[in-house]
Amino acid sequence: MNKLLIVGTVAFDAIETPFAKTDKILGGAATYIGLSASYFNLQSALVSVVGDDFPQEYLDLLTARNIDISGLEVVKGGKTFFWSGRYHNDLNSRDTLDTQLNVLADFQPKVPQNFKNSDVVMLGNLHPLVQSSVLDQMETQPKLVVLDTMNFWMDCALPELLDVIKRIDVITINDEEARQLSGEYSLVKAAAKIHTMGPKYVVIKKGEHGALLFHDKEVFFAPALPLEEVFDPTGAGDTFAGGFAGFITQSENISFENMKNAIIYGSNLASFCVEKFGTERMIDLDKEEVLSRLKQFKSLTQFDIEL
Amino acid sequence: MNKLLIVGTVAFDAIETPFAKTDKILGGAATYIGLSASYFNLQSALVSVVGDDFPQEYLDLLTARNIDISGLEVVKGGKTFFWSGRYHNDLNSRDTLDTQLNVLADFQPKVPQNFKNSDVVMLGNLHPLVQSSVLDQMETQPKLVVLDTMNFWMDCALPELLDVIKRIDVITINDEEARQLSGEYSLVKAAAKIHTMGPKYVVIKKGEHGALLFHDKEVFFAPALPLEEVFDPTGAGDTFAGGFAGFITQSENISFENMKNAIIYGSNLASFCVEKFGTERMIDLDKEEVLSRLKQFKSLTQFDIEL
Repeated sequence: MNKLLIVGTVAFDAIETPFAKTDKILGGAATYIGLSASYFNLQSALVSVVGDDFPQEYLDLLTARNIDISGLEVVKGGKTFFWSGRYHNDLNSRDTLDTQLNVLADFQPKVPQNFKNSDVVMLGNLHPLVQSSVLDQMETQPKLVVLDTMNFWMDCALPELLDVIKRIDVITINDEEARQLSGEYSLVKAAAKIHTMGPKYVVIKKGEHGALLFHDKEVFFAPALPLEEVFDPTGAGDTFAGGFAGFITQSENISFENMKNAIIYGSNLASFCVEKFGTERMIDLDKEEVLSRLKQFKSLTQFDIEL
Repeated sequence: MNKLLIVGTVAFDAIETPFAKTDKILGGAATYIGLSASYFNLQSALVSVVGDDFPQEYLDLLTARNIDISGLEVVKGGKTFFWSGRYHNDLNSRDTLDTQLNVLADFQPKVPQNFKNSDVVMLGNLHPLVQSSVLDQMETQPKLVVLDTMNFWMDCALPELLDVIKRIDVITINDEEARQLSGEYSLVKAAAKIHTMGPKYVVIKKGEHGALLFHDKEVFFAPALPLEEVFDPTGAGDTFAGGFAGFITQSENISFENMKNAIIYGSNLASFCVEKFGTERMIDLDKEEVLSRLKQFKSLTQFDIEL
């Protein structure tokens, strides 16, 4: 089986939506990426850090999904990264209420020895120096390196971000972040500019409006599945990235044509993520449901015009 | 050849975008619908009204595209409907600067005798009583009636709008209008509610985010083509509707599967419309360009996951 190395936060989240409110629940980019990628045939390992307030049941939940957590450092006496946010009525925007970095502040990632030859590396949203450090530790060149980031690092650590972006193959960011990073309003122009910064593939996530994959002069679009109700969008972007990286890892094919399929898988998995609070739906999910929804994606998008 | 009857405004538009500004140029829903539908093999007629300030060259332009204008009333001493608007920087929203109804205020549509048996009727955005009056004049039941409308009529003539909506097959409205008409935020729920008002098919236009086609429990999505630059969005929605109605008229096939193709044709034609000011690009366009861009739509959306 091919190997996928995942780096990112493992966190406590407290979420408010127009429908309901949670106390501290399991969250974090690496958590969502790991759960999403676990629907594919692959070996995955998660590199991250938590405090010793992190419950054993959450660790068990990750290992139950065949995620190697030997690279998940548990800091004695430390507190786990905490994020709290409140979504607006349209669920498309949110306010951050609280961020406590805690053990994340001094995090030094350690890649497990038997994942230093991973086929695919998924660098979830974290400080760009942590993302770079993971790449430094690889002993063989991964077939594909995917990076997710956010506007926060563009504001606070742009030189470090630009450094790591030079070293990756695929970047996944949202539309506003693509505009900020490139200084271009048109997403077509933004993607072209980001190409010149390093990544051969640029994925622009537009939330409920789907995702675009740019490569050279080519572009592919995956819609989000129209849903009756979105319950909680937290983790949808990471679930999308995990589905993308997981499918690529499983299929060992990094052609543009296969990346189209990977984007569809990412959208598919993200459409489940938003149906319940936090990671709840991703834990419930079975492979039959994923396959059945792929059929919906086909009928949603496929047409037959003779040319 | 099958017949398409088009009703809607023929107007002067004055447009400001972040890039440029026009004086009075040719505009109006029926104009855009007619130009767009003229790329298909069909007979079309336009029912509308203008003043005698409307230039002969614009009339010639319509007849040159094989649009029958015997139902386009020219009111002696009357002034043509005038609309003026200014787009915001993102080109996704606009302010109306001026609306002068002029001859439109007392418009009584008259359907030309040889179009009273039209196969398809496209009711462009106009007062719902005018739309109803056109349906009253039909001597045979059209195979398909498509209606476009806007929030203005929901605010000012809701009972009349609900009356005409009962009599049609396909409604095309934008996302905000679908929410207003249904009282539902989720577009899936909005479409379900609008179905119960009459239309078996609900098309929700999301501008640069594409368009959704709902029918029973089925849904199809056509993206907008990602463009380097949008120059002027005026008329894109009407061009979309004209492409949809034009393709259905030509193909004589009102199945859901064929409507998917019609939606793609609508998006295709709309992607040209926004490339230049007003109707400029739609007049220039040749069929080869339309076909070539259809290939782009295919590579943008088609994937090949084995299920």
